Order: sequence, then structure tokens, then C-alpha cells
Amino acid sequence: MSTQAYIISTGTELLLGDVVETNSVFISRRLASMGIRVVGKSVVGDSRSSLEKAFRLGLEMGDIVIATGGLGPTRDDITKEVACEVMGCSLELRPEEVARIREFFKRRNRDMPESNLRQAMFPPEARVLSNPRGTAPGMFLEKDGRTVILLPGPPREMQPMFSEEVEPLLRQKLGEKMGLVKTRVIKVIGPGESKVEEMIKEFLDGLRGVSIALLAEEGEIHVRVTCEGEGLEQVETRVAALETGLVKALGQNVFGYDDDTLASVVSCMLRERGLRVAFAESCTGGLLAKMVTDLPGSSNIFWGGVVSYSNEAKIQILGVSPSTLASFGAVSPETAGEMAHGIRSRSGADIGIGITGIAGPDGGTLEKPVGLVYMGLADANRVLTKELRLTGGRESIRTLTAKSALDWLRRYLTGRG
Amino acid sequence: MSTQAYIISTGTELLLGDVVETNSVFISRRLASMGIRVVGKSVVGDSRSSLEKAFRLGLEMGDIVIATGGLGPTRDDITKEVACEVMGCSLELRPEEVARIREFFKRRNRDMPESNLRQAMFPPEARVLSNPRGTAPGMFLEKDGRTVILLPGPPREMQPMFSEEVEPLLRQKLGEKMGLVKTRVIKVIGPGESKVEEMIKEFLDGLRGVSIALLAEEGEIHVRVTCEGEGLEQVETRVAALETGLVKALGQNVFGYDDDTLASVVSCMLRERGLRVAFAESCTGGLLAKMVTDLPGSSNIFWGGVVSYSNEAKIQILGVSPSTLASFGAVSPETAGEMAHGIRSRSGADIGIGITGIAGPDGGTLEKPVGLVYMGLADANRVLTKELRLTGGRESIRTLTAKSALDWLRRYLTGRG
Repeated sequence: MSTQAYIISTGTELLLGDVVETNSVFISRRLASMGIRVVGKSVVGDSRSSLEKAFRLGLEMGDIVIATGGLGPTRDDITKEVACEVMGCSLELRPEEVARIREFFKRRNRDMPESNLRQAMFPPEARVLSNPRGTAPGMFLEKDGRTVILLPGPPREMQPMFSEEVEPLLRQKLGEKMGLVKTRVIKVIGPGESKVEEMIKEFLDGLRGVSIALLAEEGEIHVRVTCEGEGLEQVETRVAALETGLVKALGQNVFGYDDDTLASVVSCMLRERGLRVAFAESCTGGLLAKMVTDLPGSSNIFWGGVVSYSNEAKIQILGVSPSTLASFGAVSPETAGEMAHGIRSRSGADIGIGITGIAGPDGGTLEKPVGLVYMGLADANRVLTKELRLTGGRESIRTLTAKSALDWLRRYLTGRG
Repeated sequence: MSTQAYIISTGTELLLGDVVETNSVFISRRLASMGIRVVGKSVVGDSRSSLEKAFRLGLEMGDIVIATGGLGPTRDDITKEVACEVMGCSLELRPEEVARIREFFKRRNRDMPESNLRQAMFPPEARVLSNPRGTAPGMFLEKDGRTVILLPGPPREMQPMFSEEVEPLLRQKLGEKMGLVKTRVIKVIGPGESKVEEMIKEFLDGLRGVSIALLAEEGEIHVRVTCEGEGLEQVETRVAALETGLVKALGQNVFGYDDDTLASVVSCMLRERGLRVAFAESCTGGLLAKMVTDLPGSSNIFWGGVVSYSNEAKIQILGVSPSTLASFGAVSPETAGEMAHGIRSRSGADIGIGITGIAGPDGGTLEKPVGLVYMGLADANRVLTKELRLTGGRESIRTLTAKSALDWLRRYLTGRG
């Protein structure tokens, strides 16, 4: 059975709903990549009894308990005391830690408050995890077959401590027992979740040491492949074989892997082909341009765009003909095509994209309901148009529209190898 | 002592780190507004023993346990069974629920799978919470001084069920015992967190039944005032008095309250004054336009914009002079001013805003570092410019820039009352 972990996040502010707790998300992801399964997590305030209950539950459910927060010098910071009490360990002052903290204050020309000495106390069994970005050190404690790991609360202290200190210790501790785990995410756009499931159903069951999970995310489907095995070569061969099969089954719907985004993939394709694109956005209101310019260095492949939110903007800047607007309406394939053509010719970019639609919640009619979107794509030779019929709220319609435009561009560029 | 609640979120996908758990954030916030304190929360997978442990811990720590997820028709959906087992209740088939589910499938011309009958089973003591947006009803169960509330996992089903069914039941149940709690959030932009703290320090300590908390959020500071009291009048008077004092101390830095956003406040001011704005964005790449068009109905106050990401775009569409770009550079007050003037005159909008800067991570120099931004604001009479020096990553610089532009517009419009 695989190693199981339990995560505890402490801090009263995490219970008010003002702050979203992200430490456990980071830790879960890292543990998953090491093949350690998270079986549960708790968020508790700075109360001794809550914290004690959470630790007891964590030790009951997991082999490893990882807690973040509550390692500071103030009276509220009780995570270490409670953890040691539950584990049956005593806290002793460590001279080298006292020296380190004194040095910290000395360098800053400040007196060390007596309360900071609490941060220099650790059980003899524990390993101290250094914190170059703050005063609160972490702790790695193994006893009676259980491991308790304490980390500071601020993500910018916690994350490097996890990567630099905890990960190597865990890998070493778990050794061969951990086995080898490799994860690959194949990103798909176009078909829905159940369609994707159908396309890859032959891969879904019965493969030893392999798990495949589907995750729907804002119009994309992420296929996560996890392979386990005895050695690096075996695992890599498994992942590669499976990836080849899945990509063949999913075809052109696969747009990327792991950390790729639609915008990063399309930007890369444009760069490889030496092409520049320009956008004319109506209902997406700048979102498409924002997605492309989220990436640094986009000026080589992105000329710029026009947010033609009003009809005047479509006419004045893009040269859409008033009679097109009058005859077919602002939301029509004709207008989308003229927008694409207009931004392309005004800009001199190689490709122009036009988007017009009804993002809602108002403005829909029986004939042209909320969610109806037209897109145009113009190059030197032709103007293509495309209709989308989307459902959901305003934000979701806008996001799906922008992603569909990027995906359309991706498929268009694929054809131009 | 105030009523205490414990929240349980179920679902294996919440433990992998792929999905951020938001249900508990929504519920925490709502409970806080009712004066119910959340003492802890757990996330558990779809395992019977984990779920049972979480319920036992929840009932030990809280008067109310609220669980989301695991109410569907499949074998994995065990939240109701486990909750009832822990509470010592038996599940019985409810004929009216069976009828409702049969009807649901009949209307869709589908056969009801036998497994769906599990969704029609409830303990006799329980109250069924209807779910017009899905098949899984919720449950409200009171027994032995404890309350267990089960809600569906999808936020679009959970949130309305909480607002429409759970909140009224909780308010009724808690009655006078709940006391009265009123919260008001005053939103500030301009000064940093410690500066805000200093400005309002006379209000920060010692007021009975009042708590004030500061929360920094992407360039904004939210001042959350919570007042408790014995009656509606007393509480409202307290909040109003405090609000008046705080707003006076914070002056023009206050841009809104509660659910206001900078974009909603500025849109409203433009609408009241009958003015239309147009944007010329370089480093923000469409983000400012996106923020304004996130709100429905923005076409009355937003003409549109140009994302002039390249120099050609600045020259061709905005009419920025090539010699300005050559002499002062794309990131200069001169260029920002010409962009603002250009978009205003091209569009015929009342106000033009131009933004140019270095969002990084590359492109900075010693003289013009990453984070240097110039903004221009043009109206019929003049062109103003403004310099920002921001720190942080690309995303943060872009967000702070767009917010600063909205805030500048807000202060400008305030002057034009």
C-alpha cells in the first residue's frame, strides 16, 4: 500500500472565508508527484484543542502528517508544542538555534525579544529545517513509524522549504519503498469529457501500475496519466507507450502537455512560422489579447488588437460597413468576417481574428440567444467564419469564446505546418 | 458563547491539488455574516472511514456540521449514509422524493436507473432541501442538540441551496440566541496596509462589540467592520457611526463598499455623468478593457479600445508620432499622452486613457526598469500624464496598472461631480 499523508493548515484567518488556503494545494501536488497519497486535510484555528484533535486524526489516517503555520514567536503560535505533545516528545533549547536567532536580530541591530527563544526549542529526535526567508524554522520528526513535518505558514517561506528540505528527506526515507511515479498530463480541447472518455476507453481499465484520470477545466479536458514501476526505464517506457496511444486516439484535439496553455502553444506556433496576428474583439472585450499578452515576449507574434465594443468602434477603426451592421446585425458571421478582415488590413498582420457575440446576461433574443458567438479568421487569401453556441454565465461564455478562438487559430496553423 | 460550525468537503479530486476547494470559503463567509463561527474544516476523499472520522471530529468540535459533496447516485456517494450512521438515524424511502426523481427522468425521456432511488432515502427526522438545479437533494437534520447539513458538491447547486434553504433555517433555528451581527467592508485604494492602519488607528482598539480587520488584496485594502449587539437598531447605529468615522479618516481613498469593484464604481460614475471612455493599452494588453467588460451593459460607457502592443499599432491606429517614439521611447509620458489623445480623437469618446509600461520579466533597463508605467488621460481640454513604479511579477504589475488606471479615472470623475 502506498504511503499516506494528512495535511493540517492552521490559522484563524483561514476559517473566515477571506483568504483561500493554498498551502495544502501546493503540498498535495508535490506529494502526488512523489507517489504519496493525501488521504485528508484539516484547517483549524489557533486553538490548542482544535489543533490537538486535528493532529490525532491526522496520525490516525496518515503515515505522514504535514502541518503549516503557527511556528512564529507569539503566544498564538502553538503548532510545535501541540505536535510534540501528541507525539510524546519533549521540547529542549538548542544552543545552535539560539545562536542563529541572536545573530538574526544582531544583524538587524535589534534586541531579540525573549519570546523568540521558543523558536529555538525542538525535541531531541527532530531534525530542524532551516528557513533562510524568515525566522521560523521547520521541523521533521520521525517516531514510532509516524512522521510529523512542520512548515511555516507564508507560502514564500513554506514552498522553498518543502522543495529544498522536505522533498529530499521524504525521497530518502521512502527509498525503494516509494517506487517510481511519473505523471504526464495530455491537454485536449474540442470534445467534451464523456466524448474524450469514449475516445480513450480502451486505455482506461486494467493496465497494471497505470492510472488515467480526466479533469474538465473551462472548456479543456486534461488527461492525467500516472505510471508506477520499479525503475526509471520501466516507468518512462510505460508513460511513453501510453502517451503515444492516447495521442493517436485523441488526434488533433490534443493541444499540449503538462504546463502548456492554449496561448503558449499558439504563440509558439506563430513564432515558428514567423507570423503575426491581430485581434478585433467585441464580446470578449480584450480577454483574448490579455491571454496572449499574459506571456512575456508576445510582441513578436502579436501586433495588437481592437476592442470594438460599440458599433462606432467597428465602423471607425475596423472599417466594418454600416450596411452590414444594419442588414445582418453586430452579431453575425458577416460582421465577424469584416472585423477579421478589417483588423488584418488596418494592421498589416498576417492573420486577423474577429469575435462578436452575446455574452449575456442581457441582450439575447429568441433568434440570437445569449451564448451565440461568431468568429472570423482572415489571411491573405480568404476570410473564414465560424459559429459557436455556448451555455453558462457571462464569464464562462467569454472564457470559452477566447479559448475557442485560440483553438481555431491552432488548428488553422497546424494545417500550415 | 456563539454557535460553532464545522465544514467537511468531500471528493477525492480535492486531495490531488488539481482543484482548489471553494465551497468551504463560500460557506465560511456566509456563516460569518450570520455570526456563526467556523472552528475547523476537513477535506476528505470518498472513503467511508475517512468520512466517518471527519463527521465524528466535526460533531465534537461544532454545534453544526455542514458537508458538501457525495450526494450523487453512484456507489462512491456515501456522505448521507455515513452522516446518518454517525448521527444514529435510519434511512427510509420517501415516496414524494421517489415521485420527484421519476418525474425528472420522465421529462427527459430517460429510464430512471435503480441506483437513483438512493437519492430518495432520508431519515424521518430530516428535512429535505430541494435542488432545482440538479438531482441530488440536500438534507437538514437536527438531533440531540446537533445539526447536520448536507449539500451537493457543484457550487452552482450548492450556493443557491445554501442561500435559499439553509440560511433561513439557520436564522430561524438560532433566533435571538444568534445575537445580531452586521458586517460592512470599506474598500480603499492608494495607501498601503500599514498606512491605512495608521490613518484609522483611533478606531482600532477598545470598542465594545466591534471588530475591525484589514485585508490587503491586489493593491486594494479592505477594512472589514463587524458589529455585534442586542437589537437591530443598536447594531445598525454602531455600524453607521463607525463607517462615518472611518470614511472621514480615509477620505478619497475609499472607492466602495461590500461587493463594489473599482470597475463597477467607475462604470457607475461614468453612467451618472453620461460619459464614455476609450482605452489604448500597451503593457496591460487588454486587461483594462476586460475588467470593464466583465460587467454586463458596459457598452453605454465604454466605446472600446485598442491594444497597441507593437509600435506599428501605436502609430497606425492611435496616431502616435514616430518621432515621439524615437525620441522618448514607447515607455514615456509623451507616448502615454499621445496614446490617450489618439484613442480619444479616433473614437470620439469623452475620455481617452493610454497605458504604456514594462511588465517584465524582460525588457527592463537601468533607466527604465521593469515596473515602470506611464498613463495618460485625455479629455476635451487637456492631456494629463502619470508615472507608476510598481514591483512584483508580470501578472501583478499588469493588475496593479489596470487598477491604478481605474482609480485615476475615479478620482478624475469625482472632481467632475
